[in-house]
Amino acid sequence: MATFMDVHHGMTGITAEQLAAAHRADLAIQAGEHVHFKQAWADPETGTVYCLSDAPSKEAVQRVHERAGHRADEIHHVSITI
Amino acid sequence: MATFMDVHHGMTGITAEQLAAAHRADLAIQAGEHVHFKQAWADPETGTVYCLSDAPSKEAVQRVHERAGHRADEIHHVSITI
Repeated sequence: MATFMDVHHGMTGITAEQLAAAHRADLAIQAGEHVHFKQAWADPETGTVYCLSDAPSKEAVQRVHERAGHRADEIHHVSITI
Repeated sequence: MATFMDVHHGMTGITAEQLAAAHRADLAIQAGEHVHFKQAWADPETGTVYCLSDAPSKEAVQRVHERAGHRADEIHHVSITI
């Protein structure tokens, strides 16, 4: 397992309810890919969303996000954590 | 206080020791700006570093990073957190 930070752009105006619903959609299907979404942060002004996960691969993270209807624009393997 | 995610690009090859040293430099001076750096993640392959902080403003976060010698390329006010 590794840790990933993925980024979604173009989410200007996202609300707390919308972020929570998107996160729930990920959680509902993540087990099928052995992904664990841990935290998420949104900046509605610039439309940027960050999701932190533990997962077997970048591709597994993307498959969950795609199936939940919100493909990530960037996925970074953050191999160093403080 | 608000929560901020800042991003540094161009950090390709950053090591765990370098990230730890940069983080310590922030922690050493953050109180002067009422900033609290909480977590940091680095992807040495793409050279991307993310720092999560609580702070009074985006400008306060940048002042700490600048004084510590590593200006952020982006600072996002992540007003929604899960």
